[in-house]
Amino acid sequence: MKIKTLALCFIAGSVALPMALAAQTATSSFGNNVVNSNITAAEVEAAQKAWGEALIAISKTYDERGLAAAKALANNVLDSAYGYNSGPVLFKPTLTHGAQTFRTTKAGALAYFVGGDSAFPNDSGFALKGWRGYAFQNAAVRINGNQALTMGKVMLTGTDGKVTTVDKTWAFEKDDAGKVRIVLHHSSLPYSPPK
Amino acid sequence: MKIKTLALCFIAGSVALPMALAAQTATSSFGNNVVNSNITAAEVEAAQKAWGEALIAISKTYDERGLAAAKALANNVLDSAYGYNSGPVLFKPTLTHGAQTFRTTKAGALAYFVGGDSAFPNDSGFALKGWRGYAFQNAAVRINGNQALTMGKVMLTGTDGKVTTVDKTWAFEKDDAGKVRIVLHHSSLPYSPPK
Amino acid sequence: MKIKTLALCFIAGSVALPMALAAQTATSSFGNNVVNSNITAAEVEAAQKAWGEALIAISKTYDERGLAAAKALANNVLDSAYGYNSGPVLFKPTLTHGAQTFRTTKAGALAYFVGGDSAFPNDSGFALKGWRGYAFQNAAVRINGNQALTMGKVMLTGTDGKVTTVDKTWAFEKDDAGKVRIVLHHSSLPYSPPK
Amino acid sequence: MKIKTLALCFIAGSVALPMALAAQTATSSFGNNVVNSNITAAEVEAAQKAWGEALIAISKTYDERGLAAAKALANNVLDSAYGYNSGPVLFKPTLTHGAQTFRTTKAGALAYFVGGDSAFPNDSGFALKGWRGYAFQNAAVRINGNQALTMGKVMLTGTDGKVTTVDKTWAFEKDDAGKVRIVLHHSSLPYSPPK
Repeated sequence: MKIKTLALCFIAGSVALPMALAAQTATSSFGNNVVNSNITAAEVEAAQKAWGEALIAISKTYDERGLAAAKALANNVLDSAYGYNSGPVLFKPTLTHGAQTFRTTKAGALAYFVGGDSAFPNDSGFALKGWRGYAFQNAAVRINGNQALTMGKVMLTGTDGKVTTVDKTWAFEKDDAGKVRIVLHHSSLPYSPPK
Repeated sequence: MKIKTLALCFIAGSVALPMALAAQTATSSFGNNVVNSNITAAEVEAAQKAWGEALIAISKTYDERGLAAAKALANNVLDSAYGYNSGPVLFKPTLTHGAQTFRTTKAGALAYFVGGDSAFPNDSGFALKGWRGYAFQNAAVRINGNQALTMGKVMLTGTDGKVTTVDKTWAFEKDDAGKVRIVLHHSSLPYSPPK
Repeated sequence: MKIKTLALCFIAGSVALPMALAAQTATSSFGNNVVNSNITAAEVEAAQKAWGEALIAISKTYDERGLAAAKALANNVLDSAYGYNSGPVLFKPTLTHGAQTFRTTKAGALAYFVGGDSAFPNDSGFALKGWRGYAFQNAAVRINGNQALTMGKVMLTGTDGKVTTVDKTWAFEKDDAGKVRIVLHHSSLPYSPPK
Repeated sequence: MKIKTLALCFIAGSVALPMALAAQTATSSFGNNVVNSNITAAEVEAAQKAWGEALIAISKTYDERGLAAAKALANNVLDSAYGYNSGPVLFKPTLTHGAQTFRTTKAGALAYFVGGDSAFPNDSGFALKGWRGYAFQNAAVRINGNQALTMGKVMLTGTDGKVTTVDKTWAFEKDDAGKVRIVLHHSSLPYSPPK
């Protein structure tokens, strides 16, 4: 979203022209006069990593500074990393069920992450469970305009070193300010076939 | 994607003009000269309904005409209703797990729906299980260009009247030909808390 | 961008189901849980009309209240109706030429509309020229996501009743806040063949 | 639009994990499982260059092989480089005027480029005028999804070495097959102020 003075660059073709042509020195003939609202694979990976870091930060904050601090942090994470500011987010957390399966509002998402909301009595605070590490195993990505879809496995490591694996789908959307936000999040425990 | 002759329509403003203005007779001042690649909520609902109808059609075909006919139909459904023609589809079926959780290729999707593929030994054919009815309970939709995201519960009814409920996320994409295709599909059994 | 409580609506299919299904009462099965960032033909027409009204308002303000008031109004119009806030706008006004043909910055656009900027010595203030009426004759529109392209003739009527016709191309973009902005504007006098 | 086998790549964070993590060897964690429908600045520049080359090729073909060959080539260029296959193209050629200013149909575009169509009696064949060189001076580009907007000056050189400059706006759109097409083209002679 940068504005710069006109970069005079040329693409010239075919024959020796009688006019003097400036050499093409910029990366592209558009110089810095480029507005590009599309999301990139690198931005998607950075957003996934930021989600993992945020989860761990909430866990550590809870262990070190208590629930109020963890809740404040989770609130900030939801404001900046999710798209509730633009309307309902399609969020199906791992451990929700029944009438409260989907958390299309920020209040519902916050309850899931840190618990303590009497309106969501089954929530015990997923982000408070001592998470210390994360890893992503992406199956594929589809990028379309300012939106990207990812699906894969996410491995979360607890304080005891135990790894929890979930199947996770995300849609990320880059807003006008260039901020990448989660607008869809479906997480589920792996299917366990009957023995 | 229609081409028609130029419709002369006007939006005029502010003051009585000395020029003769044609009356605005068309729905819009663009007449039929409109190209619109965006997807609509109605198209999304139609695609959901088509998915339900296709599942039931495969089940009934299997019961009435056998596996080969069901497999041929499932193959056609995957060709027309999913986006494998444009690259990997982000598909996490309800009952897959482990290394074969994600079915980014058409072969993997076909194996899931009708089974009988030695490369996918755990697949028993989800679409063959006697489905006779479906219902959708959408939590929300987000529409962005030619792509729409939905999340909600899907209820499938078997021949015995038993209802199976799943949590389902879809991304639908409308292609250049106006065909709406599933490019992301995450289905999971509802979380069941430990008793 | 509205958030509402979950509307439970269903699409059901194929057979009489043993489960009770709620009647589909909302316009769509998504109820009010819809986020749609796409631009519509109606929004494009409204933005064209707003451009015409703004031009006339600047002209009248100049005639009735002088240059400073007209300049302040033009500044507001550029802030709200054009996309300079997101980067360079592709603006080729009708009467510019040479090295200052393109006005990719707001300063350049303001100079064109109200003049009086020594950095743009050829600008005499296009919006100050007594415009009293406008009419659009759109040739076609192409809509793609949050962006729409229009091309057509625009007829502007002066205080003397004389009509000036230009060939005009616009690209409109709807931002995150739902505001439609001009991000491309190419205006040119009709070609006049040599006699 | 490529399908490849699942690349297992990881982004891992925060702490040494007790699980073995594969090294990240691919360019991104998505490996080759990427579908990206967005247009790039490089694709836009290539499409501009292709337009210049095509214009010169039509001119040379006319000079060397005559009108029928030039018309056949122009027809192919319109089929592959313009978006008439998807509906009306917003095309305002440099030298058109009056009721035939806009060429939203392929027939109108072909008439402009090679003439000889009694339905467009004022067209003398712009592409037949001995063009031998081209150069672009882009003012800016705006990229949004599969669509890009450019504006700038285009300099065309004739057989006599004389350079004709036009102000030109293009919208390019990348289709499902990855082909970049012109869907909007506004060309105008530079404004010449009264002496």
